[in-house]
Amino acid sequence: MGRVTQRRTIVRVTLGAGDDGSGIDVKRSPDSLAAEEPLEIRVGPGGGARPPLAVTMRTPGDDLDLAIGFLCTEGIIRHSGDVHTAQLCAGDQEPNTYNVVDVVLSPGVPAPVVDPSRNFFTTSSCGVCGKASIDAVRTRSHFDVAADPVTVTPAVLAALPDALRHRQRAFATTGGLHAAGLFTAAGELVCLREDVGRHNAVDKVIGWAVRQDRLPLAGYVLMVSGRASFELCQKAWMAGIPVLAAVSAPSTLAADLAEEAGLTLVGFLRGPTFNIYAGAQRVDGTVPAAEAPPVALPGRGSRP
Amino acid sequence: MGRVTQRRTIVRVTLGAGDDGSGIDVKRSPDSLAAEEPLEIRVGPGGGARPPLAVTMRTPGDDLDLAIGFLCTEGIIRHSGDVHTAQLCAGDQEPNTYNVVDVVLSPGVPAPVVDPSRNFFTTSSCGVCGKASIDAVRTRSHFDVAADPVTVTPAVLAALPDALRHRQRAFATTGGLHAAGLFTAAGELVCLREDVGRHNAVDKVIGWAVRQDRLPLAGYVLMVSGRASFELCQKAWMAGIPVLAAVSAPSTLAADLAEEAGLTLVGFLRGPTFNIYAGAQRVDGTVPAAEAPPVALPGRGSRP
Repeated sequence: MGRVTQRRTIVRVTLGAGDDGSGIDVKRSPDSLAAEEPLEIRVGPGGGARPPLAVTMRTPGDDLDLAIGFLCTEGIIRHSGDVHTAQLCAGDQEPNTYNVVDVVLSPGVPAPVVDPSRNFFTTSSCGVCGKASIDAVRTRSHFDVAADPVTVTPAVLAALPDALRHRQRAFATTGGLHAAGLFTAAGELVCLREDVGRHNAVDKVIGWAVRQDRLPLAGYVLMVSGRASFELCQKAWMAGIPVLAAVSAPSTLAADLAEEAGLTLVGFLRGPTFNIYAGAQRVDGTVPAAEAPPVALPGRGSRP
Repeated sequence: MGRVTQRRTIVRVTLGAGDDGSGIDVKRSPDSLAAEEPLEIRVGPGGGARPPLAVTMRTPGDDLDLAIGFLCTEGIIRHSGDVHTAQLCAGDQEPNTYNVVDVVLSPGVPAPVVDPSRNFFTTSSCGVCGKASIDAVRTRSHFDVAADPVTVTPAVLAALPDALRHRQRAFATTGGLHAAGLFTAAGELVCLREDVGRHNAVDKVIGWAVRQDRLPLAGYVLMVSGRASFELCQKAWMAGIPVLAAVSAPSTLAADLAEEAGLTLVGFLRGPTFNIYAGAQRVDGTVPAAEAPPVALPGRGSRP
């Protein structure tokens, strides 16, 4: 596991011990914790030093994938050809902490305009709203996931949570890591990454795919261990993934973005039950034939 | 609830329906989703316009608390007197989305230096590491939580998860919100906030306390619904909270920061069982009298 987990001595407390159930049991024992370290991502043209674009708290490992996935889902690069080199910084003066990734963009790829808010949209008015956020993603995404004809069966979806959990090696020892898994429509796991942050786990998966020139990830299903936020839907769209499934709840803006993008969004996926928040026509047998495609939710326009 | 939750029509799927268990049941029904919208925080001196410092995706509600809590836990303000005014931006030209908080600092309070990485530390070398992150928090925190003599009983800790969950009104309808609760050492709930983001929920609680001039929050316990990250420990320390308890796992860097700060860190708090990762001397009966205080973990220095 290397730096993915670390051992610590902890105090384990159990109430209700003793014959009358009133005592407490206290044990000191070793435990594995999920590793968390900062990663600084530097990006710019070759020659000289590049400025830091972002610092994320992540679990070490697959750091080049994380940096490249982040740059892709933020719309800074489109494919592996946009990256000249990416390396863990060598550190000339201090001990190398392996916590800096330095990305040199290929000639002609514009360096990102550093945004003080580290977000993908800026505003100088009061027009900050969900719609503006969605518009910003639409402007940046190069892929039309709405046109992806893939379908999945309910049985394949129902099997994903167990498939994800059983392959989570570090979670098994720490209980403290999120996971993102890329599956084929037949339910075959293609890539799994774990991280203390859900967004990082997704960026690691997408960065892996970028480096293999697999984008757009048409026909694939991305499964995440936690909730489905707006930013996770954004990342799926930016990578061209047509189906996003989450163990827990989506937010309103995640559902809205999925609807706008033509993304299928599945939530509360817990074995034999799940909810579909957008794009139900991709899940076999859930939309009457006369209706599909697409499913327009009441009170909202149909997808573009 | 207002904008905290919103109704959507969703498709609910259940496998295993029918007499032979091979069918699927598909229902369309209304559901409540946790609201997510961007919030832009602007901060600076009075007169003219102030620049945006950050945009966070949050659940609307208690937005002034969120902004002020964020400014406090990032070390930009120390108490309510550092804030001249804070208001939801009125929006002269466009419809007001209520998604901008404009904070005017009091005269003499330095405006933050906008950091392109939106993080509290910067570096121009390869020295990005967990230790540097911890040092940055130590430099910024005004409170010595290590000196806080409060103790809590295991029974009080064991009762916190239920107390938090039973008061989470929006979670009950959506299943998609994190919560942060501030409790006295006797287990009395003082303030609870819900948000799609754990960090936002904590900032809302701390901002509420800042506006009531309650900092440092000596003697209090902060309970969070998810995992305990480095940033949550940072926020607790910045607010002077001596005990942080989480339903799920802490990371290595969270445990390290708690140890350095003299913070008590409890994880996997699920009723009658929990783990203590730092500061066990504050949990009654878990440290032999001869040892307390403090508990130094093997291989690490004792707290300063």
